[in-house]
This record gives sequence, C-alpha cells and structure tokens, in this order.
Amino acid sequence: MKFSISTLRRLPVYLDFLKMQSENCENISATAIASALKLGEVQVRKDLGSVSGAGRPKVGYNRKKLIETLENYLGYNNAKKAVIVGAGKLGEALMGYGGFRDYGLDIVAAFDVKNIGNAYSNKPVYHINALSAFCKKENIELGIITVPASSAQVVADLMYESGIRALWNFAPVHLNVSDDVLVHNENMAASLALLKKQLEGTEFITD
Amino acid sequence: MKFSISTLRRLPVYLDFLKMQSENCENISATAIASALKLGEVQVRKDLGSVSGAGRPKVGYNRKKLIETLENYLGYNNAKKAVIVGAGKLGEALMGYGGFRDYGLDIVAAFDVKNIGNAYSNKPVYHINALSAFCKKENIELGIITVPASSAQVVADLMYESGIRALWNFAPVHLNVSDDVLVHNENMAASLALLKKQLEGTEFITD
Repeated sequence: MKFSISTLRRLPVYLDFLKMQSENCENISATAIASALKLGEVQVRKDLGSVSGAGRPKVGYNRKKLIETLENYLGYNNAKKAVIVGAGKLGEALMGYGGFRDYGLDIVAAFDVKNIGNAYSNKPVYHINALSAFCKKENIELGIITVPASSAQVVADLMYESGIRALWNFAPVHLNVSDDVLVHNENMAASLALLKKQLEGTEFITD
Repeated sequence: MKFSISTLRRLPVYLDFLKMQSENCENISATAIASALKLGEVQVRKDLGSVSGAGRPKVGYNRKKLIETLENYLGYNNAKKAVIVGAGKLGEALMGYGGFRDYGLDIVAAFDVKNIGNAYSNKPVYHINALSAFCKKENIELGIITVPASSAQVVADLMYESGIRALWNFAPVHLNVSDDVLVHNENMAASLALLKKQLEGTEFITD
C-alpha cells in the first residue's frame, strides 16, 4: 500500500494527543480529535482509518487500543539502532532526548574526533576511526549527522562505508549519496528562513 | 509577490554551497550549482531568479554578489530577537548553535523554572515569571519552545501574553493559538517516523 507522507507525519501527533488524555477517557471520537487538533474531521477519519479500523458510531475509538495500534504501526516497540556523528551540543541534546526511545529510536553511541571518552546520558563517545567496526558489529541502521556543514559529506561517506543506508542529516548542506541511501534533511536554517519571512509579511504558496 | 515555500527552503542551501566554494571561484553557473546540489537546472535558475537577476550567459553568477543578495533577502544582516523557553539540553543546543546568528536569529535569553542563573553560550537563563516583562522591554518577536509536550501549550499562551506572535515549536504537540500567531512546528518525531517507515520499505506518496 502506498501511504501518504502527510498522514504519516500526523500519526505521532495523534499519538501524543491520545496519550495526554485522562485515564478516564475510554473512548474518543474523530470529531473530538479533529476539534482539539484543529484538523478536518474527514482527514482525521482517513488518517486513522489507514492504520486502524473505523471508530464505532456514536462511541468513537477505544483510546488505549488506538494508542497501541499507532505505537505498533510507528514501530515504537521495534526500536532501530542509530549512531550520532558529531558529539557537540546538538548531538548531546539528541542523545539526552529520552523521547526518541519512545519513538523507536535507540541511539547507542556517538562518534567524534574530540570529547572522546565522555558519555552523554550513558551513551559513550568514541573516536570516529572506530565507526565502521562498531556499526558492522552492532548492525546499525541509521546514522544521525550533527557535525558542521563542512564535514557532513565526509561523514555521510564514512557512514555509507560502515553499512548505514539511512541518514538523518542536521547539517544545513546537501549530501551527495548513492541511490540506495535514504536521506532525511532536518534543515533548521530553512525553517528559520521561512518563519522570518512570514513574520515580515511575505505570503507563500505551497508547492 | 507570492513566493514559493520550496524555493525559500532551498535558498539557505544555495547560500551554504556558495560560501563553501574556494575564494578563487569568482563566477559560478546555474549548471554547476544544479549539478553539485543534484537539482534541476531550470529550478536553480528559477529559484535564484526570484531574488537576483539572471546569471550572465557563458559566465554565470558573480559568486560574492549572489551571496550578498541571498544574505540580504534572507535577512541575515537584520537579525530578529528571540527567546527560548525550556533551558534543557535542546534549548542549550540551540543557544550554543552559533549558526543561527548567521541566519539572522539572535537568541538573547532563555527561560525556565530550573537552571535559573546559569548562562549558556553567554545567554542568561531567567525564571519564567520574568518572561513577559523581558519580552516587552526587549521587543522580542520570536519564541522558541523547547519544553516537554505537556507544558508546550502553557508556554505558547504565556508567549502570546508577552506579545510574541511567531512561535518555533520543538515540542511534539499541536498548539492551539490565536489566528494572528505564526507557528512553525519542528516535529522531529514525525521526521523519525517517516525515516523509519522508509527504512522498512514503505513507499510514500507526497501530497
């Protein structure tokens, strides 16, 4: 089945919302979810319908069951191992962000050329020279790049040689990678540029 | 003029690329830029054309001039003042990220209920009770939310009362805000969900 990216991006938002409700809330309707999250009701039904059955008429979805379904779909109980290259402040922040574990991401170690021997949130920092052997031994699937833009390509190449085929890139730079590599760019500079321009009153078209 | 969001999101990437070229590189063609960044040539010409004049035939763009044009357009020389609420690791990482200054964002202080009196990268951490007075005095335009999801709505409301009308939200939760507030959600959980699903082989349609 082909899945919509927009739908997938909303699933963690539904999940968070459902988890934040009171324990007494047994059932919840698409109408209530839509209203709380300021989304269309049709969209909510469609999004949730793509991973779960439909809600029961006049009752809605069983909240706990829907949480379980979303967690399973999002693979929260099937964590993937990741490494970070770049043990600076952003790398440290990501290692310390307990939330990723809930989202099925297990950051097991960081690599850098400095800060070696430190441990952030119980995760060790190793020398970059040890990356390849570590990734092959630990079967690492995902590489997170938090080095400066000028080093990001070298790091991406190293990750490829280490067997990693999915990159989460926080460096504000385009990476040249082989066709069998997935890259997700977390371009905060672009977000910032957009927000600033909107603040100045520029109107945008989405395309 | 209505501007395309996709174009705007690529401008910082062009800028980084241009800055990374050798000082000896005086002119650069759209063809060279397109090829290096794996973008279409027509797209590059269109993107750059929307902020600058066209490149000169057979010569291309003057690199330094194009950098200057992009920096001016993106407001790098016209920094906006921002505060962070949530002086945890992510907040600290954002405060320590020197890059934002280049992107025209000046994070002047952080607010929290703990870590008060600390300073990260020379930026003070104040008690959240001081937020409103500070923002009004310093004419803060942008608020960055790096608190846990459960506190994000309270913080958004506080920022609104403090006169802030643009929010950059790193908490994985939907914020209910008044219509005169801009919100940009940096939903890392959604990025992660997408990347994990792609890694498992799910195909996506963009919509």
